Amino acid sequence: MEQGIRRQSEEDPTIPIIYVVTPTYHRPEMAAELTRLGQTLLLVPRVHWILAEDSKTCSQVLSDFLEKLGLPFTHIASPMPDIYRKLSQAPRGVSNRRAALQWVRDHGADNGVLYFLDDDNAIDIRLFEEMRDTRKVSMWPVGLIGLYSVSSPVLNDDGVVVGFYDAWPAGRKFQVDMAGFAVNVEYLRKQRKASMPYIAGHEEDGFLKSLRITLPDIEVKANRCTEILVWHTRTTKNPLRTLNLTKHKSDNIKELAHNMKKWSVINLRLSPTFFRR
Amino acid sequence: MEQGIRRQSEEDPTIPIIYVVTPTYHRPEMAAELTRLGQTLLLVPRVHWILAEDSKTCSQVLSDFLEKLGLPFTHIASPMPDIYRKLSQAPRGVSNRRAALQWVRDHGADNGVLYFLDDDNAIDIRLFEEMRDTRKVSMWPVGLIGLYSVSSPVLNDDGVVVGFYDAWPAGRKFQVDMAGFAVNVEYLRKQRKASMPYIAGHEEDGFLKSLRITLPDIEVKANRCTEILVWHTRTTKNPLRTLNLTKHKSDNIKELAHNMKKWSVINLRLSPTFFRR
Repeated sequence: MEQGIRRQSEEDPTIPIIYVVTPTYHRPEMAAELTRLGQTLLLVPRVHWILAEDSKTCSQVLSDFLEKLGLPFTHIASPMPDIYRKLSQAPRGVSNRRAALQWVRDHGADNGVLYFLDDDNAIDIRLFEEMRDTRKVSMWPVGLIGLYSVSSPVLNDDGVVVGFYDAWPAGRKFQVDMAGFAVNVEYLRKQRKASMPYIAGHEEDGFLKSLRITLPDIEVKANRCTEILVWHTRTTKNPLRTLNLTKHKSDNIKELAHNMKKWSVINLRLSPTFFRR
Repeated sequence: MEQGIRRQSEEDPTIPIIYVVTPTYHRPEMAAELTRLGQTLLLVPRVHWILAEDSKTCSQVLSDFLEKLGLPFTHIASPMPDIYRKLSQAPRGVSNRRAALQWVRDHGADNGVLYFLDDDNAIDIRLFEEMRDTRKVSMWPVGLIGLYSVSSPVLNDDGVVVGFYDAWPAGRKFQVDMAGFAVNVEYLRKQRKASMPYIAGHEEDGFLKSLRITLPDIEVKANRCTEILVWHTRTTKNPLRTLNLTKHKSDNIKELAHNMKKWSVINLRLSPTFFRR
């Protein structure tokens, strides 16, 4: 399967790198989601994937997965602080996105671009070329969001952003989904206080406000915000089931279940010694 | 974005073609699903994508999508017969899969391989290389299925299939998901009566029985059925919402909504003349 794998050495080093930040956490769908998204990124030149786990340590299964995939990557772990975990509306994915932000500040190329992309979203790879020349902050519509089935900037006749078409209740300056914008790395670095707040539902708005942009600053993409190139798809959750393998002590199902447990697809009722060989 | 697009002329014509049959239908997630899956197939050499709509005619939006994507493809439409639509458990995707089966019988290369892959499934592209040398019928585990979170053949010590690990109630000879097997085209063609029944939940079993294979005939893949390389992911459904655009008669949201309606993401409350220019 060499054909699909990008060869970094053949890439044009003058093309700005896109730093794709994907928060993730262990659950039954994780392997499917990361396989699907990681393969999509293989189609895009000059991408650096920052996989940011909501956990204390980088899990071995994801380190191995990233090594095999063949993309340039950084693997980060940063758990949600305990004080937020107790909230009914916990700000998920903030601690790990903040850790990724710090990595991009410290290591990103000046002409690079930061983009947040959740592991269950779907993206048309043409969007990466749209965002690649971002000078400050660029934006575009995101499909399958809220009561309008979309969230998008609204433009005036001159193509300047004058507001947002988004069904979220008023109260946010930037009515934008996390997948709906990209930020130039040099511009990000200049905004020394820029950060993402631990407030569920206000992560995007708070971060964009901290970047000190005005509506006319926003660079509009996706054919003047008339096309959807990224969708806030959500994958149906499966329960974490506990399997009993007493009937399969000596066949392939034992090893299959071992691999499933490693990927957090299932739990096992068996003692760890069951898997010693 | 030429980099990711496969160049058919560069492909080795001796490699067997995989005919990937994907049933689909219009709903808000369709654009996201087909974009995501179509891009994944771009990573695989020697694939021919058969997109089979559950409708009377091939929709223009999907014909245009397929033309742009750059994969070799066939676009088929075949609706579920009305007598089945009334059933509480309607056999969805059978009529269009049967039409695709007929196309493969009529046009497929003898050494080719038939594979059914739903548009919301997730697949590791290494699975295509596993199935490419199928001589009769090959099988492997499918993740995120039923109460065991997996459906897999069970092998004996000699690597021969002796049964299935699958939580579905007994009564099927082949306890297999649609994404869990592939069929050699020449072998399919020799089974003149092979077909898929219009019985919900028994499509796979009925089709595999009609192929007249025995359990020992099954060629096992994915490291002796110990690894999951395809997942029965399901995407959360969004309601088909009707938008009122009276406040957006002259901005980008009008054209954005027009594109969304074309892709069946939304309905519009407006008269068709609203969109004449």
